[in-house]
Amino acid sequence: MTQSPAHPVSANLVLDEPIFDKLTLIGIGLIGSSIARAARARNIARHIAVSSRRVETLTQAEDLQLGDSYTQDAGEAVKDADCVIVCVPVGASEQTAKAIAPHLKPGAIVSDVGSVKRSVIDQMQPHLPSNVHFIPAHPVAGTEKSGPASGFETLFDNRWCILTPLPDTDQDALDRLNRFWAACGANMEQMDADHHDLVLAITSHLPHLIAYNIVGTANDMEIVTQSEVMKYSAGGFRDFTRLAASDPTMWRDVCLHNKDALLEMLARFSEDLSALQRSIRWSKGDELFDLFTHTRGIRRAIIDAGQEVDLPDFGRQAGLQQSDDGNSSK
Amino acid sequence: MTQSPAHPVSANLVLDEPIFDKLTLIGIGLIGSSIARAARARNIARHIAVSSRRVETLTQAEDLQLGDSYTQDAGEAVKDADCVIVCVPVGASEQTAKAIAPHLKPGAIVSDVGSVKRSVIDQMQPHLPSNVHFIPAHPVAGTEKSGPASGFETLFDNRWCILTPLPDTDQDALDRLNRFWAACGANMEQMDADHHDLVLAITSHLPHLIAYNIVGTANDMEIVTQSEVMKYSAGGFRDFTRLAASDPTMWRDVCLHNKDALLEMLARFSEDLSALQRSIRWSKGDELFDLFTHTRGIRRAIIDAGQEVDLPDFGRQAGLQQSDDGNSSK
Repeated sequence: MTQSPAHPVSANLVLDEPIFDKLTLIGIGLIGSSIARAARARNIARHIAVSSRRVETLTQAEDLQLGDSYTQDAGEAVKDADCVIVCVPVGASEQTAKAIAPHLKPGAIVSDVGSVKRSVIDQMQPHLPSNVHFIPAHPVAGTEKSGPASGFETLFDNRWCILTPLPDTDQDALDRLNRFWAACGANMEQMDADHHDLVLAITSHLPHLIAYNIVGTANDMEIVTQSEVMKYSAGGFRDFTRLAASDPTMWRDVCLHNKDALLEMLARFSEDLSALQRSIRWSKGDELFDLFTHTRGIRRAIIDAGQEVDLPDFGRQAGLQQSDDGNSSK
Repeated sequence: MTQSPAHPVSANLVLDEPIFDKLTLIGIGLIGSSIARAARARNIARHIAVSSRRVETLTQAEDLQLGDSYTQDAGEAVKDADCVIVCVPVGASEQTAKAIAPHLKPGAIVSDVGSVKRSVIDQMQPHLPSNVHFIPAHPVAGTEKSGPASGFETLFDNRWCILTPLPDTDQDALDRLNRFWAACGANMEQMDADHHDLVLAITSHLPHLIAYNIVGTANDMEIVTQSEVMKYSAGGFRDFTRLAASDPTMWRDVCLHNKDALLEMLARFSEDLSALQRSIRWSKGDELFDLFTHTRGIRRAIIDAGQEVDLPDFGRQAGLQQSDDGNSSK
């Protein structure tokens, strides 16, 4: 599999010694396949076992040579694994925990990559045996693409990975999982599961919902044609379509499993939007100017924090040039 | 001025013969300076006159060698011009029309680049003499940067430029303005001013307002720290910050001058958001899944329409790589 020009080859060091003898990935979509690629390229695990419920996905993973063994049976996949990472939509956490629980090796680390943490804990913990180390995790990284072919080795480089360990988590297991994600390129952070769900509600879940909503609104417009929406989308609309092209199953589950935090954020957003609407209706230019000035600084801070590129228009001009040359990553 | 790697050098042909002897740009920000660069590089005008009310901006334009003559006096700048393009915030249209009207050459084309068209017509037309050709225009292109240094030659390449001519507009003048924008790289479209304002309300104005609003909401969060918002912004939030970093004066004016269309779009958006909120509250997974699936196809259509890059994550990985190499366009 060649590296597309859109995904730079990482300068990260390859480990001298793998962290795990056997790493099992349950689910091999964007996140799972990116873990597989990083683990392979950086010598993070000796054996990578891949499991997916769908045979088409599994075949695709095998064609891409993402692992060393492949099975539709999650229980079979976790046998003898030192570390199991569940990479399924949040709503499938409970059934996955039930399927793997009887087959886990004592002392194994069981983790996940879900965008919601309290619900994953509630779904999985009751089913897992007490002799494994269950440590929930969330790498805050992704693209709007999904499926095994969409992953890439450097997805986690310089992104944050949040662990939300339960009380009395074994320190040695925690250290190993930290080392694992750091080897995948991530910066590590730790917080309480409930706080995680609030933080992600505003930084990730609300933005996705708003993006889905505005794209839906534009689609239902009878006074402006669809073709006009497409043609003139460079005026701003297209920025929202990226998030609104994300995996529907994943985002349905996030909405259902982080409901309270999301409803709270939606209420705040709507309140602010009503105030903005009122400023427009009554032509309060100063209020509009103040809001629009204030928000400007926030992008600078995100760029300075290394979480965004400092190129105008997301560097799209460079991307278009690339596409013109026939070098795009289609 | 060297071409940054983020802005490819255009393959557009240089004209054998300029379209205008003298082109005057009133206002030399992102749009004005991009016109100047394209006009110079592609031999579109023999003489480019640059005017700005602010002396700092004018000095900067001169340092960047954007034109052939520079003056703070708009009336002086338009003397003998064959084409005058007003590139000021929409709210400054009337005062600009008043300032230039007595000095316009008979037969000159007077145009603009405003994101709102009905208001610009209402502000300018009454003041312009009947012996000039007033043809309102709107190039649907831009970035979140502003000022003379932010412009670049290829800004309009493959973007749409909408003309909203008044009844009885001179066909020859219309043809010349069409040729001018086509030479700048734009695809040309023509529509009624009121329809333009509706189309742009949904494709550009509403997206900007929503972006400003969500960034404002995130900023007022007492339960999640600002530093957490920055750190985890890669989960989706950062996509909104680009639009919310756009020029505050320009966007204040758009809100004030396209009020009716914008309030209509805001009402539709809020209605849809309430329905989405209700789907979440009552755990209607199927409704959520349907919306999230439907919106996915729209991005594909925009990419196929040539208005978006087909790179995951806006090709940000490539951009980050570039920044690491020290080649970014800071």
